[in-house]
Amino acid sequence: MSNYYIGVDLGGTKILTAISNDKGEILKKIKLPTEAEKGKDHIIDNIVKSIENVMKSVDADSEKIIRIGLGSPGPLNLEEGIIYTSPNLYWENVPVVKILEERIGIEVSLENDANAAALGEKWFGAGKGINNMIYMTVSTGIGGGIIIDNKILHGVNYGAGEIGHFIIEKDGPLCGCGNNGCFEAVASGTALNRKGKYLASMNPESLLYKLVDGDFNKIDGKVIAKAAEMGDKLALGIWADEAINLGIGIANLLNIFNTEMVVLGGGVMNAWELFYDEMMKTIKEYAFESVYNSVEIRRSVLGSDVGVIGAIAVAMEDRLLK
Amino acid sequence: MSNYYIGVDLGGTKILTAISNDKGEILKKIKLPTEAEKGKDHIIDNIVKSIENVMKSVDADSEKIIRIGLGSPGPLNLEEGIIYTSPNLYWENVPVVKILEERIGIEVSLENDANAAALGEKWFGAGKGINNMIYMTVSTGIGGGIIIDNKILHGVNYGAGEIGHFIIEKDGPLCGCGNNGCFEAVASGTALNRKGKYLASMNPESLLYKLVDGDFNKIDGKVIAKAAEMGDKLALGIWADEAINLGIGIANLLNIFNTEMVVLGGGVMNAWELFYDEMMKTIKEYAFESVYNSVEIRRSVLGSDVGVIGAIAVAMEDRLLK
Repeated sequence: MSNYYIGVDLGGTKILTAISNDKGEILKKIKLPTEAEKGKDHIIDNIVKSIENVMKSVDADSEKIIRIGLGSPGPLNLEEGIIYTSPNLYWENVPVVKILEERIGIEVSLENDANAAALGEKWFGAGKGINNMIYMTVSTGIGGGIIIDNKILHGVNYGAGEIGHFIIEKDGPLCGCGNNGCFEAVASGTALNRKGKYLASMNPESLLYKLVDGDFNKIDGKVIAKAAEMGDKLALGIWADEAINLGIGIANLLNIFNTEMVVLGGGVMNAWELFYDEMMKTIKEYAFESVYNSVEIRRSVLGSDVGVIGAIAVAMEDRLLK
Repeated sequence: MSNYYIGVDLGGTKILTAISNDKGEILKKIKLPTEAEKGKDHIIDNIVKSIENVMKSVDADSEKIIRIGLGSPGPLNLEEGIIYTSPNLYWENVPVVKILEERIGIEVSLENDANAAALGEKWFGAGKGINNMIYMTVSTGIGGGIIIDNKILHGVNYGAGEIGHFIIEKDGPLCGCGNNGCFEAVASGTALNRKGKYLASMNPESLLYKLVDGDFNKIDGKVIAKAAEMGDKLALGIWADEAINLGIGIANLLNIFNTEMVVLGGGVMNAWELFYDEMMKTIKEYAFESVYNSVEIRRSVLGSDVGVIGAIAVAMEDRLLK
C-alpha cells in the first residue's frame, strides 16, 4: 500500500500536474492548457481535472494522497492559501487552497513558483544534500528562491527572494517593475535580446545581422548563441557582457548569503558554454575569497519539469525535512 | 544568588567590557586601550584584565558567570573560535576562544562584531520583540548583521551578511575591497566625505567651502551636516544623494529579505533628519509595495554601547532564545 503526492505547476499558459510515489519519483504527468481567459472557475476546473486524471492513471484513491503542492506565480499569502494577484491568470484574492481542498478533499500547500522550483532542485535536482542554496532562473525575467537551513526564506509576508529586483546598476536600463538598473533589467533573457537587437541594428556587417536578414524581431537568445558559436564578435561580446552581469548579481547574493551552492535555470542557461567561464571569473572577482571558495555554481538539472517537481517537493516537505 | 554574563567588544583601538545580570542589564562597564601594536599576548592580557575587573566590581566569582560573549572584527571561524585575520589587531589564526577559556575558566562565545551589534539591537535595543531584521552600520564602511527567525544568518563559513559589498552601481566608485560600485563605496561615511571634499573644492562660493576656510581635509560628516543645516545648497545636495544611495541599498536588501525592521547605526546616522525623508521616499520607490508596507526603518538606540551590549547578547543567546 503506497502513498502518493501530487504537484501542480500553475502557469499562465499551462497547468502541469504530476503524481509521485513517496520517494518523489514521478509516476504520471499531465499537461493541460490553463485557458486563463475563460475565467477563474474554468481554471479551477482544469486544475481539478488534471488532479483527478493523474490519480486515475495510477489508480489511487484520495486517502492515499498525502498532500497536494501547488506552485503559483505571486504575490501570495501562503499561510491563508490566497493568490493575491496574478496578471497572467487575471486573478485577484483567490483563496485557491480552500477552494481546491473543498473540491478534492485533500490538503493543499501553496508556494510561490520560483520557491517551489528551488525546493525541486534542492530535494530532487542539482542541490541534493545541500542545505543552503540559491536557485535562480534567468529567462524573460529573473526570479529565484533562497534556501537557508533546508527551508525557503519567505520573509514576513512572503515577499522575500525577489532576486531579480535588486539594483546593480544605478540609473541603468528601465525594468518592468518601473525601477532602473534592476538585476533583471540588466541580465535577463529580455535584456540580452534587447541588446542583441540594438547592437545588430548598428552593425549590419555582423553575422548576427545576417542570420536574421536584418529582421531584428527575429533576434533572441538562440540566434545570439548561434552567431556566437559561429565566431561572430558582436554576439560573443553580448555573451561576455551577459556573463559579467550574471556574475555581479550572483556575487552580490553570495556576499550576503554565503551559500554552498547556486543553481541556475531558465532559458538563458541553454547557452551555458558561451558565458560560464567569464561568469565564474566575474564571481571570483566580486565575491569574497572564502565565499567564492566555498560555493559551487551548477546548472539546473530538472529542466522544464522543475516547476512540477518543485510542487511535489512542496507537498512532501514535512516528510523531506524529517 | 544571581547569575552574570560578560560581553567583550574587541576593537582595533579599545576593548569595551561589561558585566550584566541575567536580564542583560549592564552593572559595570570598563574601557581599556587595545594597544594592538604591542602584540597578541598583550591584547589577550588586556582582555583578561578587563574581564577580571568587571567581575571584581560586582564581586562575582567565576562560577556565577554563565558565559562570556566576544565580539570581534573578522573573518572568524565561530565554531572553532578562531580569529583568522584582523588587520586592526595584526592577528592571524588566533584561537582566541580556547586561549581565553584556558585563562579564565569560563565558556566564551565568539561572534563577528557587526553580527553582535545586530543581536544587541534585536534583544536590548530598537528591535526588541522583532524576529526578522537587518542591522546596518554606516560609518567609515558599511557593515551589518541579518537576523532571520531570531538568529544571525551566518552562511556556510561565517561569510554571510557582508551588506557593504554588493554592487549597486556597476563601474561606480572604487571600494576598499578592490571592486567598483559597492554599496559601501557609494553610501558610507567615507564616500560622503569624499564627495564633500570634491564638491567643495569645485565650489569655493559654497558655505561648505567657507566653513573649513578652504582646507578640504577638515571636511567630514559633521561639517557637511552643519553646512546643510545652515541651508547650504551644496551640502543639502550631498545629503540628498546620500539618502538616495542609502535608500537603494536598503530597498535591495528588503526585496531579498522582506524583514519586519531595519535598524540603522553608525556615525552617519547623526544626521538622521537631513536624509530620513528622502531615504524613505527612495525605499518606497525601489522596494515592492507589500515589502515597503511591512517594514519599519529605525535608528539604533544603543549608540556606542551597541558592540558591548551585543557581546552580552551573544553570551546570553541560549537563554534569550528560550
